[in-house]
Amino acid sequence: MSSSVPIQPADGVVRLSVDCMGGDHGPSVTLPACRAFLAAHPQAELLLVGRGEALAEAKAWPRCTVVPATEVVEMDDPLEVALRRKKDSSMRVAINQLKAVDGVAAAHACVSAGNTGALMAVARYVLKTLEGIDRPAIASVMPNQRGGFTTMLDLGANVDCSAEHLLQFAVMGSALVSAVDGKAEPSVGLLNIGEEVIKGNETIKRAGELLRQAAAAGQLNFYGNVEGNDIFKGTTDLVVCDGFVGNVALKTAEGLATMMTTFIKLEFGRNLLTKLIALLALPVLQRFKNRVDHRRLNGAALLGLRGLVFKSHGSADALAFETALNRAYDAARNRLLDRVHDRIIATLQAMPAQTGEPAPGDAGDKVASAAQAA
Amino acid sequence: MSSSVPIQPADGVVRLSVDCMGGDHGPSVTLPACRAFLAAHPQAELLLVGRGEALAEAKAWPRCTVVPATEVVEMDDPLEVALRRKKDSSMRVAINQLKAVDGVAAAHACVSAGNTGALMAVARYVLKTLEGIDRPAIASVMPNQRGGFTTMLDLGANVDCSAEHLLQFAVMGSALVSAVDGKAEPSVGLLNIGEEVIKGNETIKRAGELLRQAAAAGQLNFYGNVEGNDIFKGTTDLVVCDGFVGNVALKTAEGLATMMTTFIKLEFGRNLLTKLIALLALPVLQRFKNRVDHRRLNGAALLGLRGLVFKSHGSADALAFETALNRAYDAARNRLLDRVHDRIIATLQAMPAQTGEPAPGDAGDKVASAAQAA
Repeated sequence: MSSSVPIQPADGVVRLSVDCMGGDHGPSVTLPACRAFLAAHPQAELLLVGRGEALAEAKAWPRCTVVPATEVVEMDDPLEVALRRKKDSSMRVAINQLKAVDGVAAAHACVSAGNTGALMAVARYVLKTLEGIDRPAIASVMPNQRGGFTTMLDLGANVDCSAEHLLQFAVMGSALVSAVDGKAEPSVGLLNIGEEVIKGNETIKRAGELLRQAAAAGQLNFYGNVEGNDIFKGTTDLVVCDGFVGNVALKTAEGLATMMTTFIKLEFGRNLLTKLIALLALPVLQRFKNRVDHRRLNGAALLGLRGLVFKSHGSADALAFETALNRAYDAARNRLLDRVHDRIIATLQAMPAQTGEPAPGDAGDKVASAAQAA
Repeated sequence: MSSSVPIQPADGVVRLSVDCMGGDHGPSVTLPACRAFLAAHPQAELLLVGRGEALAEAKAWPRCTVVPATEVVEMDDPLEVALRRKKDSSMRVAINQLKAVDGVAAAHACVSAGNTGALMAVARYVLKTLEGIDRPAIASVMPNQRGGFTTMLDLGANVDCSAEHLLQFAVMGSALVSAVDGKAEPSVGLLNIGEEVIKGNETIKRAGELLRQAAAAGQLNFYGNVEGNDIFKGTTDLVVCDGFVGNVALKTAEGLATMMTTFIKLEFGRNLLTKLIALLALPVLQRFKNRVDHRRLNGAALLGLRGLVFKSHGSADALAFETALNRAYDAARNRLLDRVHDRIIATLQAMPAQTGEPAPGDAGDKVASAAQAA
């Protein structure tokens, strides 16, 4: 393992730093979630970051340390405020806990429900990106028809991506799925508008070429192109796309899910008879709801940084926030940071050697120079 | 009205040409749909295009003419085959009916369930694009939470779009909504990853600028940026995006809808008790299903060509194909071709004059030169 990555938990304790003030609800949601999480994870420890008076009740909890932070990044604070003015914010202090001093950091992963843009900017500023990564990305999961989850990235951190960025997303995403879902070689799909390799714009076609090269070098389990419907079919474990497309797909899905559940409620609430039928159907409808419950999917990973940062939905309730804590815990316990680091270096080193020729254009140059730097 | 656009129906008869052989099912779907359509539209006439023996039963129908075509473009035929080899295909012959000879065409609009790529390529080759339009686009409708429909384009014809293309899409889409849905000034949203004007990549930001200019010139009812969930909220009548993003959003929505209906069926089919509840809930579930029935949404418009071409889903049943015929009929009856032509010319002429200064960069040059050409 490279010394440039903070040491991750070996067998023992996993320590998470939690921005207790972030999100729409702050401690009224984060504290109950932390307590439930601690009860379920005897080997976990928490650093609870925020205003002392707001976290008073947690001071007596076992395996907990309150870390004071006097400021709070509000959901509508501009990036500059989060980054330059509120230097003692709970978000910033929570991320600071991941910073390695002599190779050791206070926490193994951080969870915040704060503003996504601010969280990414502060995390990037404090932690910096990993070797071989140009841009961090945001990864999250969607439910699929197989009853499992499809991981998808980037979901909005990068509006313009090169083919090399998409390759890096594929490698980081594979590391995430292997760490959190326990799949050794997750299958990777490149989001496109058709299955054939000739489909898509120039960037997508070049990304497909790079992904095939990485697969040929034994570094990726590349399935090929996938389309929007494949996310929910569960055709591949991982779907890779640029942040603009990923964000549109995610929000389109959220919008449709909201519309469909609204229509179901509307039809069952139409009159006394339909309401009675709804009462009878309640257990069935509840099981349906559980299948698509976004609270079970909460906790997006900010990948490519020198530290593990997880982002909870701002509107998360305690159950949803606990899911985000669980995901951060699994990622840290399974050494996600090492996995991302090792995979990206291995991919960069393997590709030019195994393909026998440099990749075309600046792709080759970039890959080669990054491999040299490694 | 410019003489460069084939004459559209005044008050009287609307004549559609129908590719009866296209789609997964051919005449077994298209003929019953045509018969139902004729019964519902006493002022409509149909040109039924295909192999004589396959259309024999229709020869006796009133207000119908069978136009022979010996070949069929298969769903998996490469573009070249559709374009260069099958010159007597039902698709090609149906589109030929839109070609103006001395300003008069045999049909006012054409409907086909054939391969989208082939249909667009043949239509573009045969008909050419309208003055002021660089690229044709594909527009379709999605249901929204208000109980209405949101029109969206482009859905896959153009994988790389400039800001000027997106402006043209907005103008063409506005003409479509005004013609088919009867809204004089439909509101237009630009699909983005946030509402603020600083969001998105450079192309999107420039497109936003052009759309604001067009709105200032009184040519568009521009709402501003919208996000993926706004499609189903019904925030705007029209959502504009490039073909890559549009296609991903459309297929993501299709995939999620399929998954959710699969889950509903699965939970109601779990055991004898849930099946009994499903029987009771059947009318409610049926009304829910009707709300999101994609057959009611069938019939995408190929906009920007010198002729009205509508694309049915390849897998359409007779009800869905009839919906596509209805949409084509409404578009022709309400002179969609004139509307697109007039709006695009008016926009190009109005923008530089009304803003008082040329738009920045090549946008301004293009708009100016197109306005001169008009």
